[in-house]
Formats: sequence, C-alpha cells, structure tokens
Amino acid sequence: MGMIGGGPGAFIGGVHRIAAGMDGEIELVCGAFSSDPEKSKQAGEQLNISTQRIYGSYKEMMRSESSLPPNERMEIVSIVTPNHVHFEPTKLALENGFHVILDKPLAFDLKEAKILQELANKSDLLFCLTHTYTGYPMVKEARQQVLSGKFGKIRKIYVDYPQGWLSNLLEAPDSSHHSRKQATWRTDPAQSGIAGAMGDIGTHAFNLAEYVSGLKVTKICADINTVVEGRKLDDDGTVLLKFNNGASGFLYSTQVAAGEENNTRIRVYGEKGGLEWQQEDANSLKVKWVDKPTEIYRTGNIYLSSFAKHNTRVPSGHPEGYLEAFANLYRNFALCVKAKMSGTEPKPEWLDFPGVEDGVRGMTFVERVIESGKSDEKWIDL
Amino acid sequence: MGMIGGGPGAFIGGVHRIAAGMDGEIELVCGAFSSDPEKSKQAGEQLNISTQRIYGSYKEMMRSESSLPPNERMEIVSIVTPNHVHFEPTKLALENGFHVILDKPLAFDLKEAKILQELANKSDLLFCLTHTYTGYPMVKEARQQVLSGKFGKIRKIYVDYPQGWLSNLLEAPDSSHHSRKQATWRTDPAQSGIAGAMGDIGTHAFNLAEYVSGLKVTKICADINTVVEGRKLDDDGTVLLKFNNGASGFLYSTQVAAGEENNTRIRVYGEKGGLEWQQEDANSLKVKWVDKPTEIYRTGNIYLSSFAKHNTRVPSGHPEGYLEAFANLYRNFALCVKAKMSGTEPKPEWLDFPGVEDGVRGMTFVERVIESGKSDEKWIDL
Amino acid sequence: MGMIGGGPGAFIGGVHRIAAGMDGEIELVCGAFSSDPEKSKQAGEQLNISTQRIYGSYKEMMRSESSLPPNERMEIVSIVTPNHVHFEPTKLALENGFHVILDKPLAFDLKEAKILQELANKSDLLFCLTHTYTGYPMVKEARQQVLSGKFGKIRKIYVDYPQGWLSNLLEAPDSSHHSRKQATWRTDPAQSGIAGAMGDIGTHAFNLAEYVSGLKVTKICADINTVVEGRKLDDDGTVLLKFNNGASGFLYSTQVAAGEENNTRIRVYGEKGGLEWQQEDANSLKVKWVDKPTEIYRTGNIYLSSFAKHNTRVPSGHPEGYLEAFANLYRNFALCVKAKMSGTEPKPEWLDFPGVEDGVRGMTFVERVIESGKSDEKWIDL
Amino acid sequence: MGMIGGGPGAFIGGVHRIAAGMDGEIELVCGAFSSDPEKSKQAGEQLNISTQRIYGSYKEMMRSESSLPPNERMEIVSIVTPNHVHFEPTKLALENGFHVILDKPLAFDLKEAKILQELANKSDLLFCLTHTYTGYPMVKEARQQVLSGKFGKIRKIYVDYPQGWLSNLLEAPDSSHHSRKQATWRTDPAQSGIAGAMGDIGTHAFNLAEYVSGLKVTKICADINTVVEGRKLDDDGTVLLKFNNGASGFLYSTQVAAGEENNTRIRVYGEKGGLEWQQEDANSLKVKWVDKPTEIYRTGNIYLSSFAKHNTRVPSGHPEGYLEAFANLYRNFALCVKAKMSGTEPKPEWLDFPGVEDGVRGMTFVERVIESGKSDEKWIDL
Repeated sequence: MGMIGGGPGAFIGGVHRIAAGMDGEIELVCGAFSSDPEKSKQAGEQLNISTQRIYGSYKEMMRSESSLPPNERMEIVSIVTPNHVHFEPTKLALENGFHVILDKPLAFDLKEAKILQELANKSDLLFCLTHTYTGYPMVKEARQQVLSGKFGKIRKIYVDYPQGWLSNLLEAPDSSHHSRKQATWRTDPAQSGIAGAMGDIGTHAFNLAEYVSGLKVTKICADINTVVEGRKLDDDGTVLLKFNNGASGFLYSTQVAAGEENNTRIRVYGEKGGLEWQQEDANSLKVKWVDKPTEIYRTGNIYLSSFAKHNTRVPSGHPEGYLEAFANLYRNFALCVKAKMSGTEPKPEWLDFPGVEDGVRGMTFVERVIESGKSDEKWIDL
Repeated sequence: MGMIGGGPGAFIGGVHRIAAGMDGEIELVCGAFSSDPEKSKQAGEQLNISTQRIYGSYKEMMRSESSLPPNERMEIVSIVTPNHVHFEPTKLALENGFHVILDKPLAFDLKEAKILQELANKSDLLFCLTHTYTGYPMVKEARQQVLSGKFGKIRKIYVDYPQGWLSNLLEAPDSSHHSRKQATWRTDPAQSGIAGAMGDIGTHAFNLAEYVSGLKVTKICADINTVVEGRKLDDDGTVLLKFNNGASGFLYSTQVAAGEENNTRIRVYGEKGGLEWQQEDANSLKVKWVDKPTEIYRTGNIYLSSFAKHNTRVPSGHPEGYLEAFANLYRNFALCVKAKMSGTEPKPEWLDFPGVEDGVRGMTFVERVIESGKSDEKWIDL
Repeated sequence: MGMIGGGPGAFIGGVHRIAAGMDGEIELVCGAFSSDPEKSKQAGEQLNISTQRIYGSYKEMMRSESSLPPNERMEIVSIVTPNHVHFEPTKLALENGFHVILDKPLAFDLKEAKILQELANKSDLLFCLTHTYTGYPMVKEARQQVLSGKFGKIRKIYVDYPQGWLSNLLEAPDSSHHSRKQATWRTDPAQSGIAGAMGDIGTHAFNLAEYVSGLKVTKICADINTVVEGRKLDDDGTVLLKFNNGASGFLYSTQVAAGEENNTRIRVYGEKGGLEWQQEDANSLKVKWVDKPTEIYRTGNIYLSSFAKHNTRVPSGHPEGYLEAFANLYRNFALCVKAKMSGTEPKPEWLDFPGVEDGVRGMTFVERVIESGKSDEKWIDL
Repeated sequence: MGMIGGGPGAFIGGVHRIAAGMDGEIELVCGAFSSDPEKSKQAGEQLNISTQRIYGSYKEMMRSESSLPPNERMEIVSIVTPNHVHFEPTKLALENGFHVILDKPLAFDLKEAKILQELANKSDLLFCLTHTYTGYPMVKEARQQVLSGKFGKIRKIYVDYPQGWLSNLLEAPDSSHHSRKQATWRTDPAQSGIAGAMGDIGTHAFNLAEYVSGLKVTKICADINTVVEGRKLDDDGTVLLKFNNGASGFLYSTQVAAGEENNTRIRVYGEKGGLEWQQEDANSLKVKWVDKPTEIYRTGNIYLSSFAKHNTRVPSGHPEGYLEAFANLYRNFALCVKAKMSGTEPKPEWLDFPGVEDGVRGMTFVERVIESGKSDEKWIDL
C-alpha cells in the first residue's frame, strides 16, 4: 500500500496507518506524505519506507509506481488528505489501476464525486470510503438484525452526532489551541467545501442511518446554523428525514454541544422493537421490545451474526474501539483485493465496507442539506 | 382538597392522590370521582371520604362546598379528568373561589385555555398545572444552574420524549390489551383534542425545554406523523425549535418507538458547557464542560441549590422518583396556598411550580405544532 | 396505626409515615413521638393527631390504647426509635395485642431478639421488620427468578453496601456537621449495640443475600475495622460467606468509602446464569446468561412476576424509589392485617415482607460477625 | 523482535503481535511459534517472516539469533507460551542478552520466578511482564491521582474480576466447546501450576491493586473454591487484603460468575474521596468526593496527567480498548529499549510498565493464596 497525505501533524493519517497495519494484511511500502517534499521525506523515513519510494508528490508516486513491474508496485493507494485534495489523487489512482481507500468525504463537491463514481464503476478496481462507524462489529450486528426483519417494518430512525470541541473560535488567527490545525481546515470553505459540521460529521451520521436501516433518505428538512461568531461554515444542524419505505426520523450533528466528545448514537425502531448503539459503549447493542425485556448484545459472543464475529479480534469482555473499527474497513478491503487478485470469491462479510456509492450519497446529502438550510421550503428531495 | 375525576380505572387520579398525600400538607375531604354517581360513590367510600361529601357531579360538588362555611369547605380542587373535561370544572372552581390543581393540558383547545387564563389572572386564586417533570429535584437544579449563567449564553436545547406503548392499535374496538382504556381516550379527537402524542407528551417536552432553559420558543418547524394505521391522531413527531435568545434545538415525542418506556431527556448547551438529565436516572444531573471533567450532581447532597434541596425528602443515595416529583408540585402549591391564607410571603422555592401561563404556552404549542405539521412552510411563529 | 418515636430531627420516622400513608391503607391515629412529652406533643400536633391520642410515653400509649374499645383503638404499632429502644416497646405492643412494624434491627442484642421472637411466635399477631430493600419490586423479581430454578443451582452471592458519609468523625463533640445527629447514635455502643456499620447497613446486606437467594448463611469469616480514629464502633467490614447449599460469596458494608452514597447491590450466579440489582438503578434488574444476551427487566412491565407487579404503582418508565419500596412493606403488612381481621386468606404476594425470623437472623449475624472480626479462627458458624 | 509461541489456535499470541505492531516501534523478524517445527513454519510464513528466521524451537532461535551480528539479530524476545514454558525460554533469552517481554505469570512457580528475577536484575536487560490492565490510560491516570495524595491516606481497595466462561466443564475430554483449548491448559495443573483462576486472572487483580494504590499487600485471607465438579484447579476465590499502610480491602476473581464476561474493576478510597475504573467503560475514570459532585475523567482530554496522555492515540470520544492497552506495554518497553540502545534517558512515562518484580509479587501471591485457601488460620503473611 502507498499513502497520500498523513504527514507531520495530521491526525487521521496515523489512524489510517494503525488501521492498515493491525491485522498484518497490508504493508505500507511507499508514500507521498506531504505536498512539501522535505516533509514527505521526513515522514517516510520515520515510517521506515525505503528512500526511493518516498515521493515528493502524489503525481510522482503514481508515475513511478505505475512503472514498476506489477508484482513490485503498490496495489492499494490510501488517500488521507484534506477534502480539497481528494479528487485529483483519487482520479489518478483509478486511472493508473490502483485500488483506492479514501478518507471521507468522497470529494470536494458533488460534481467531482460523480466523476469519481463513473471512473470507479467502469474500472475493475475496488474502492473503500472510510465511514468508520460502519466498521464497528455492533453496528454491523445492528444492520444484520434490522435486515433480518425481526423488528417488522422500520418506522423511526434517529441519529445523534454531538461534539463540543468547536464551541470556541479555535481557528482564529491568534488561537494557540492545541486543536487549532484540526479546526482550521475543517472550517475553511476552500479546504472543506460548502459544509462544515454537516460535511465533517453529518455525513457519518447520514451514512450510519442508511447503512443500519438498509433504507434510503428521500426527503430532508434542515436547520443549519453557524453558531460561533466569525466562523465561515456551519458548525451545527438538525435534519428531519423521510425514508423510501415511509419511515421518518432525524439526524443532528453539532460541534458546539459544549462538553460532548464524540458520542455518535443511532436508534432504529420497527413495529415490534428496535435497537440502539452508541460509540461511548461501542461493544454493546441494546435491542428493545414491546412487552419483552431489553437485550444487551455484546461483542465477542457466539450468539452474534457472522458479520459481527468476523469483525472482532478478542474474546467477549475485552473492549475493542475506534482503531479496530477502522482496521475492519482496511482488513475487509484487503481481503477483497486479495480475493480479486487470486480470482476467488470474496465472502459477504468481506464485501461489507462503504464504497463509492456511499460517497456520492454523502456528497448529495451535503449539497442538499446546505440548500435546505437556506430554503424557506420545508421538504426538499434528496 | 376535593377531587374531580380519578374514579375506577383511571391511572392519573391515583397518582394525584398519592402525590397530594405524601407530605401531609393536604387532606382529601371530598370528591366527584366519576360522572357516574354510583361509581363516584364507590370510589369515595374506598377513599374513606365521608358520605355526604362524595358528590355525583362536579357541579354538585361546587355548589355544595361553596355553601359550607369557609373554614369547613375544601380549599383546593384537584381536577384529573380527561382533556375534554378540563375547562368546565376549572372554570367553575375559579368562579367559586377555589384554588386549582389541574392535570395538563390546560384545556381542550387554545380558546378555552385563554378564557381560563383570564379568569385565573383576575382572581386572587392559585393555579397549578401538573407538568410533572418540573417537580424533579434535578430538573430544578438544572434550571438553577442554567439561570446562574455558568454555561454562558445558551445555544442548543434538545428534548427527547420517546415511548413505545402505542406501537400497535391498542385502541381498536376488539383490543383486549391491558392499556386499552389509556390508549382509547388519548387517541380520540373528541376527548384529547387536535393532538395525540404532541398533546399527551409533546407538551411535557415543550414545557421542560422552556422551564430548564428559562427561554421561550419563538419558531417551530414540525414533522407530525400518524404512524399506526387506523389511528385518528398523531402518535409521533419531531419539532425543530428556535428560541428567543437565538438558541435552537429540537424536541421529539413519539409513542411508536417500540421498546421505549418513558425516557424523557433534556440536554442544554451553552458557550462553556452544558447539562443533561433523563428520567431513567432521575436522581443524577450530568454537567459537562469544555476541557474539564464531567460532573455528576446527585439528589440529597449539600452542594445542591436550595431549589433541589427543598424538593427532596431522603438522604443522598436513596432514590426518589416520579411520585415524589409529582408530590413536589402538590407540596409547593399547598405551601403557597397556606402562605396566602396566613398572609405570609411564600419562599421562592415554593413558587416554583407550573401555572396557567405554562398551560397557555402548551395549548399554543399544540395548535401551532399541528398546523406546522400540515404546512409546506418551513418555520412558523409560536 | 400508632407510632413510637419519629419526633423532631429523626430521619427514619418521617420515612415511615410517608410509607405508611402512601397507599391509603393505613391511618396514623396516635403516637408517642418522643421520650420528651413536650416534643411528642409538638410532633403530634404537626401531624394533626387528635390531642388526646398524643402520648407522652409509649407506656402511656399502650395503656391508654388498650383500654379503648377494640374498634376504636389502634391496630398496628410502628416503632421507629433508636436500637436501644426497640425491645421494650415491641414487647409491650405484643403483650397488649398490637400488630408491630419495627424499624430494623430487631433488638439491641440477640438475647432480646430471641425473647421478642418467642413472644411474637406464640401470639397471633403480625410482625414486620423494615428491611427496606426487600420492598423494591425488582428485588422481589430477583428472588422469584432465583427461586424458579431458571439459573440452576446457585453458586455465588455477592452483596455490596458502600457508603462514605462517615469518612470523618462527624460524631465528634465539636462537630457542626448537618449529619451529626445521625452519626452520633449510630456510632454509640450504648444506643446502637456492639456493631456500627455491620448493624446499621451490614444487616441489610445480609438480609438481602438470604432473601434473594432463598438460602441461609452457615459460616462466616469477617474482617471488621474501625477506620476513623476516635470512633467507638466498626465503620467498615467485609465478610466471606458460605451458604447451606454449598454456595459461597461475600458481603461488605462500609461507611468510609468516601464519595459513595448508598449504592446497595446484589449479584447472584447459578450454573446457567445470574442476576444483578443495584439501588442506584432500582427499577432495572439485569439477568445474565452464559452464551445469551443479557436481559434488562424493568418495573411496570407485563412480563414480570406477580410479586413485582403487585409492588408497583405506576406504568413502566416512571421510576419508583426508596419511599415506594418502604411503602410496599407497609402496604403488604396492612393487607395481611386486614385479611386476618376479616378472616380471609392473604395472597402470597402480601405475605412477602420481612418478619421476626429475619430479625433474629440479623441479630445472630451481628453477634457472630463482630466475634469473627476479633477471632484468629478463619471460619465460624452462624 | 522474535516471538516464542503464538502458533495456530493460540489466542494471546495474536494479541501480542497486534500490540507489538500497533505503533510501528517494533518489527517481528523471527520466531519459534510452536514446539512443532512444522506448525512453527506455517505460522511464520503466514506472518511473512523470512524462512531462515522461522525456527523449529526456541533453543534453535536463541542459538541462531545470538550468532548474528548485533545489528542484525533480534533485540527483544516476546514469550507467549503457556505458563509451564515460561521459565526456560526466558532464562535462555536473558542469558543470551535479549530484552524480554513475557506474558504473565512470570513462571510456573515461585522458585522459578526468583531465579528469573535474579538473572534479570544482574543483567542490564529490560524486562516487561504483560499485566495488560496497567496499560489502560485511565488506569495510569488512577495511579497518578492516588499517588498525588489528593484523596488523603488510602483506606479501602476493592478489586473485582468476574468471568463466567468456565461455568461448565469445557475442558472435559468430550467437550466440543469453541473455548475448549483455552479451558484445557488453564485448568491443567501440569501447564498452569498450582492455581487456576487465581493464577489466570487473580494475579491481574492483585497487580492492579498494588499498581493503582502504590501500596503493598502484607496479609491475606482467602476463600478458594473449585466450583465446577471434575475441575482440577480452583475456578473461584475471594481474598481479604491488608496493605502496608493499614488499608484493607478485597479482591475476588471467579470464572463461574455465569453471564459475566471480563469486567475487571478497581475502586480505591482515601480520606477525602476515591476513584473507580472498570474495563467495560475503559475510557472513563470516576472520581468521587465527600460532599462534591462525582467527576468523570475521560481519555484524550487535556486535563489528564502526562501518563494518561502519553498512552492514548486518538482524540477524546474515540474509544480505545484492550489491544491499545496491550500495545501501550509494548510501546513503552520499546521506547525504553531504544533509549537504552541510544544511551539516552527514558521518560518516566515510558518506564511505567510492569516488570520482573511484579512477576515475583504475582507468583508469591499465587503460592500464598492457595496456601491460605487450605488453611484454618485466618490471616497469613504475603
């Protein structure tokens, strides 16, 4: 695997590397870790990459790796740059025949996203978009239970995504906050796109709603706010949702719920019962019933679906977390790449990672939700 | 105290009686417990009311009690009938000079509500509307902490009110469900008014939002649904909220979240931190901060506000619940009635119970939220 | 009902009165509220007791009430005095033909306890000892589930009873702490007996272990400590337990776990599964299984045993607490008294309250546990 | 790094490899993965170890690696064999000049343990014993807060370690249970030593007690049981503890608490307050106070000690778990090895991993606790 981005000071690059390496399925062999060749070199050396495969730019990396014999070149590109540098390296990777793992969102805007979708679909390449929450074993269990029909027709879907870390203007020029770098690009339209919180975490909430329910959002009505004075993008919003089976619900994502960390939560209710999962208690899944006791499903137990079991490494009672969820995306992606290369059939559990269609859904959501936020009309189509 | 309603099979009547009796401030001396004189008699006898003060109708009760010498007649009327029988007995009570405790909502519709408001305001009588949740000591603590300004300007308010007991058509004519009676009047427009879930529990959520925040809702945008086929009123809804200080948020109340009981929850966030209370853990209040550990305030401790302390009966670690919260309304009301009668000044802690203005706010909310549910316009004024 | 004790400043007297009054089954008609006749009079007047039935001493009350015609005298005596004033009034009550509700422990020492046991057993009178925790509906549910055999043979029983309020010498002569009065008699051998924490809360833990498991403790090994310098009685202890079916476990009760409130907890495990209840989440019962999801049983639901249902007043999702648990003891006791007076058969659910045998068990535990604490021998018989 | 053990079917070997690889500090370069050379080969190949460094036995590995030039040979040996194969490879590793990471317990018995201690101490080599729980950031935070003195003198220490997976005789010859292999060696005296549950998980509980409190256990009184019929070693026990500062408490570890997973928990109380950590909520630390609200410290926040911060990889709200805790041991060990090799001073945070002294303490505990279990004497010295 080669990596684009993830140089000094980047949070998500390190997460991707831990995730990629966790199960020994993927080896990092090359990278263009920064747009600054010197920084790229430093990062690569720290990561023990052989000098000749540390590149000064992703273009150089594509050119150089493509020219290696097939069994020597990287097979997968992992792209972990800020949003405005998603499109070009992804496009190049696909054009040069590399499988792609891309940090979400798919692109800077919907137009770019659709180009990448077309490219990916007409290629024979695999594509993974890292919507991390779908990597948690109990989120996979939740999806399997909903799809099994045990709850009857789904009626209500609620997704919470509260954060509080942007309660102040961390991105202010004179800010000395330790999260200033993280805050700055996320609140800058030139790097993030038209959405702030809705793009950064709202897309995760949206993806989680569609993933767990197996449904599609058809209509939205959004209240989008920029709460902190001086901020250039939304930092808060609530979105009413209508789904293609008639279900309704909402998602909200905010970065000004002062004191909240990252407590993503989803609740889905059908005719007979429902379920609840939240990241702060990631190894549990609450299953609720009309007139029967609530059940707590826990990772690592034999009563779970094959999808949950496949995505767990340790016995019940040993908590796994965010990095393992992330690693599940990489592992499943790698297993599918290996299956493709060996001409074998991947298992359904391996194929269960978010892809380019999720990315286009996410970018559609971003465009429409911002539009809805500005509109006097109540419901707009997604 | 005299009671109107609360005869055989009524849930809330028994709750009112326990609440009224808990602290020995109030004695039940008479009642018209049912519109059926025979049933009223039975109920009254079971409650050890002297036969001559068990009445066959509330009109008879008003007449009869008014004719007693002041020091022998009831001083307070507690009205616990279904919604469509709130207006007349309340009106009569006020006209006959009795202090009133009324189960929410204030009336069948806003028009009635405003008449009662006028009557109450021009009288010298005390009025309590039993929005139970405001009786919990930790809800009172929450309000005091918000009002103290410690969180800075309030930005976000979220209220959850999920129930699941109406996931099926319990009110069906052939239903043999143990909650059929409760379901039937709540889903009948002739008894409940124009709203189902929004009136029954949405008004509690609305009241909680305004009570804890000290703010007023100015605009709403509602998604109102009748989820269960055959039902005549809404059983589900989510409402986007705008507040008079610029804060925003939502409330939802649903009776089709299958498997949920009654887990009312409120979260309020300001510039510096926020708080969270939920009924399932009613004796705790979570206080959250940007960059400081979350604090858990618990009932019965010396660090609490006088408002929380005044509304607790037992030492810390001994949980109080719904009945005690309800009893706090009665107790504070009774203390104020006694103060009035003795010409003394009531303490601020005693005056802290919901009144006729809360009732008018609630009925306004009901009318507007149902209107918003039907409207294509996004925001409507409250 | 008449009350002995519970005058000004007493915590538990007020709790008994609320509990007795909650369900309208019992009326407080007389009392000797203090050993100081003046204070008794004040208390009685505040409670609206007719002047001639407010007594200056419990002896006077016994004499006077006994001389009333049977249908006018009190039927039940509630005794809520400190431990050293349990024996005499209880003895008098039994000798004068009154049913007795007594705050635990049964007596000052085991010798007294056995005399009361003999008196009670040879009389035709009902006797209730207020081990409050057995009044919680989910504790009753726990017992029923264990007795049903669903978990197989019981193997392990753990009871926690941590408090922290005696972490400092509140009983010091110069203490101005708001809990000084509560601390003083509990740590005074002349008022409490040979045990401090073990008598005050350890007996509750012991009773809970035997009640929920349906087993008897046969051997104990105790570590008993007086942690706070200057204290005259134990404020901390852990006791290893052996039960009559071969099960083992422990209980601990401490009043120096600084920061703990009153989080009584019991866990019982059998061959196939187990259960857990704790007072901080009193309306839930966790039921655990080898290789099946944990279940959460909740008060107010139709799937519960008749014992849990009978002891709940409000629908699921409306928390009940300590006062309701206490009231369940009174209500069941009153129902049994009424059944006896009317010559009808009490229901099994009514009979489920702690009695004089529990009291003797508790006093035996106190004597032996203190002995074990001083002994170099490991196991001693109970 | 080279690895001994961890071949096909071993659980803990895979955990060690993930932990070692997580932070890119350590590379697995050779191994003797099984006592069966063929299985070792298979395992090594799957792990992409170069063929010539996959060894058929640990003796061969020691010989061969020692003969390589210093900059080419492995620097660290990770030993993950069952208990009865800890001593010899560890001895050989130390004698051959390799730093050692050893899965707990240190040895098969105390005699062996002391030999290894002597060897390690007189060498210049680093030694890490993988008591995983000390790798959790919030366990480190707990220790730092206790050591800071903020709670005053420590008085009470309680450690819980309940598991339920051995509730049945999984190790029976005819068992087809998926955990049979794990059960078999743990319950076999020839492989495990004199203790079952007390060695397997009791030592973790013991280590946690001493680590977090900074105190030493001086006396114990143990109730040790073999609950499941046919089992050869203890599967359950509770141990009363006395500490060198006068504090007391208990630990229990059981593998027959049917329905429990692995919910290790520690509570420590001092004069002014205390703290509580449990593995099921590993990213939180509850800090409790007499007369102040409980505080919840959470991983990833700036208010934490440098020890907690150093051992966290992701921002607050992104849960880390068991594998990350394990990886912290490896990472700190590797940082110290590198410091030693480069002649620089390791940071205090790096040195904070369990070593050979912890191992000797653990083996002492095992010997004495089994002895105490058989003794009629109450307290025995540790």
